[in-house]
Amino acid sequence: MTERHDAVDVIRVKRDGGTLSDDQIDWVVDAYTRGVVADEQMSSLAMAILQRGMSRAEIARWTAAMIATGERLDFSGLGRPTADKHSTGGVGDKITLPLAPLVAVYGVAVPQLSGRGLGHTGGTLDKLESIPGWRAALSNEEMHAQLREVGPVICAAGSGLAPADKKLYALRDVTGTVEAIPLIASSIMSKKIAEGTGVLVLDVKVGSGAFMKDIDQARELAETMVNLGADAGVRTSALLTDMSTPLGYAIGNGNEVKESLDVLAGGGPADVVELTVALAKEMLAGAGITDADPAEALRDGRAMDMWRRMIAAQGGDVDAEMPEAPHVEEVRADRDGVLTRVDALGFGVAAWRLGAGRARKEDPVQVSAGVMLHKTLGETVKAGDVIATLHTETESRMPRGLAALDEACGGDGAIAIGDGPVERRIVLDRVESAI
Amino acid sequence: MTERHDAVDVIRVKRDGGTLSDDQIDWVVDAYTRGVVADEQMSSLAMAILQRGMSRAEIARWTAAMIATGERLDFSGLGRPTADKHSTGGVGDKITLPLAPLVAVYGVAVPQLSGRGLGHTGGTLDKLESIPGWRAALSNEEMHAQLREVGPVICAAGSGLAPADKKLYALRDVTGTVEAIPLIASSIMSKKIAEGTGVLVLDVKVGSGAFMKDIDQARELAETMVNLGADAGVRTSALLTDMSTPLGYAIGNGNEVKESLDVLAGGGPADVVELTVALAKEMLAGAGITDADPAEALRDGRAMDMWRRMIAAQGGDVDAEMPEAPHVEEVRADRDGVLTRVDALGFGVAAWRLGAGRARKEDPVQVSAGVMLHKTLGETVKAGDVIATLHTETESRMPRGLAALDEACGGDGAIAIGDGPVERRIVLDRVESAI
Repeated sequence: MTERHDAVDVIRVKRDGGTLSDDQIDWVVDAYTRGVVADEQMSSLAMAILQRGMSRAEIARWTAAMIATGERLDFSGLGRPTADKHSTGGVGDKITLPLAPLVAVYGVAVPQLSGRGLGHTGGTLDKLESIPGWRAALSNEEMHAQLREVGPVICAAGSGLAPADKKLYALRDVTGTVEAIPLIASSIMSKKIAEGTGVLVLDVKVGSGAFMKDIDQARELAETMVNLGADAGVRTSALLTDMSTPLGYAIGNGNEVKESLDVLAGGGPADVVELTVALAKEMLAGAGITDADPAEALRDGRAMDMWRRMIAAQGGDVDAEMPEAPHVEEVRADRDGVLTRVDALGFGVAAWRLGAGRARKEDPVQVSAGVMLHKTLGETVKAGDVIATLHTETESRMPRGLAALDEACGGDGAIAIGDGPVERRIVLDRVESAI
Repeated sequence: MTERHDAVDVIRVKRDGGTLSDDQIDWVVDAYTRGVVADEQMSSLAMAILQRGMSRAEIARWTAAMIATGERLDFSGLGRPTADKHSTGGVGDKITLPLAPLVAVYGVAVPQLSGRGLGHTGGTLDKLESIPGWRAALSNEEMHAQLREVGPVICAAGSGLAPADKKLYALRDVTGTVEAIPLIASSIMSKKIAEGTGVLVLDVKVGSGAFMKDIDQARELAETMVNLGADAGVRTSALLTDMSTPLGYAIGNGNEVKESLDVLAGGGPADVVELTVALAKEMLAGAGITDADPAEALRDGRAMDMWRRMIAAQGGDVDAEMPEAPHVEEVRADRDGVLTRVDALGFGVAAWRLGAGRARKEDPVQVSAGVMLHKTLGETVKAGDVIATLHTETESRMPRGLAALDEACGGDGAIAIGDGPVERRIVLDRVESAI
């Protein structure tokens, strides 16, 4: 078959700062998925996109082209609104666990397609797999049935959604082209749009533990994604939220499930509750429900009931206890004072090295590995107080976990104790489509 | 074996506009040659280099790293100076044929490693292979012997020189990264430095038929290469020369040999003679010979004698007649006037399509295919005069050759006839190292 474009011609346009035509975009994404455009050609194009950028129209077309390489789900027959949340990834970010059942309390279906962790950021599926019997892999039919009959579903994205993205993401990972905002935005949004949700709320993380280190980059990414959603007919908004400090006290898998259960029981860390409620309000507002008080549904047990139904529907043992790790070390305060730094990246890397995360997609994760903070940012400590405990199932990992805390922040360490009070803000800004 | 760098880290440095360290450059070039750095990683890096540029020190190191992947020739034992010329490629550029024996007349050894044509630019080896019996492939020993005993040698570069460049060039060709001046310069200079010449003169072409379309780009390339040569201890200078019009009247293979013989016999087109003499003076001056009059050696037969010895030494039949193509078409003037345009690219593409050139490295070329100009830029024509004849061994190629002339210059055609006189300059500028 004769191809209607030449890869080098397409690369040259972007290389020289031009705008790719709709047909060039459609072709290059499709031809790459078919293997006609080679990896070395796509990586060169990705670098040109990183350097030269893309217009809003180009990004929208690129996203549509990625969606067109796979299947699209359709929830229009459910008879109720659908809302989904996507986080760009953080440390201790277990928000999806309480959030999905909480939003479903109000009659909204929550088709929460989630991923696994890579590097220092955790993955929702890894956390939920701490629950014995719980199944991440559902067929489209099972997913539909659960949305209809229960409301919330957290499961693995099938390989049929935007296969171009899967191939392109793996390529970007090894070619230094992950950090291109048009490609990050289209990667996330292609899957979310293909998934067929009616409302999408983005939690764009900012700070040391996040992909975006400063708020201007994060805002650009949020605006790009919100516009993409709007262009595709999905009601999309974004919160820019702090990820310089871990969310909550638990960083890991089983311990994050436990902390989520505290939140669903009406307690839990203030920051986790605040962000869960803020995102729930965004999702509900998108679905037209503006008079709900999600904090109330956490306190009165309705969210917990929904959680139990959701977990049980996927085979999970809702009453299972999370196991304790056999190897535990304590990190103590060396002076009196206030915690002025609890670095998200440092603690994320520590938990990862202890066994909670993975370096390669095919690695297993440990249920009981991770870090438990006993104190967090802004709290008062006395010399000798335990600030954190490190947990692992593999003794040899412990020194590497401890070292990650010392090496954090350019060797200054993941923890700092000072004098003054510390102001902590969770939600930094909100972005919605200008159009 | 553990690698001492990570490809993604190296890519990121250049991607973000930084300077690669010597050790990063040494590693990435070597690791790419060994296959440890993948094609898709090198193409992403090449695009980053294209976008971000490289410092003089980075380019010198990159070139040295490419040289280090292969062997280096050494002519220091010859007992006479060595000088070589490199052209960036043009249409009708047969200069190497008279130039190499001409310079050798003065006792200079000329180790002229040459290439084959690709696309609309011809290749010196393709032209010389029009001579029955002539062998392009010499062993290093044969090359040395000919330099010592005859003086000039024009032969194929062995695969042992800068193998990294061969692999990288093939990659750049399919990834839209050919046009990066640091990579063009290091590609050319790595082979020339590894070849071991003492003096190098660069003929950097400018104009429609050249790789560099404007003189500022050409000057940047020339300066980069001249500096690279100087940094490597090779006496290097460059002439920027016009390639908006073909050189001479012959464009092809056998016909260019014939025209070269005219020059070696003391005649030939004025532009070819002018450039041959100018480049010979540069090479001789580099070798410390400043009192030579190369035009004299063309007129008095010394250059022709040297040509015959050079060709015979490589098995060529020096008295062979060049064959005539069976299919010939004429292009005639449609009005009286002066030729104000004879477009190098248009005629180069025509000759290529007629069979003189190749689209892929493995294609054969035709000895008798090409174009003969009967008039060139600035000459007077009358309506009906033959301006050019097209020659091919394959009848079906003729319409495509004719069409190339009509399609040239955005459809205005390769030929224009006007009124005024036309000034033609061959040598536009000269560049030597500032240091």
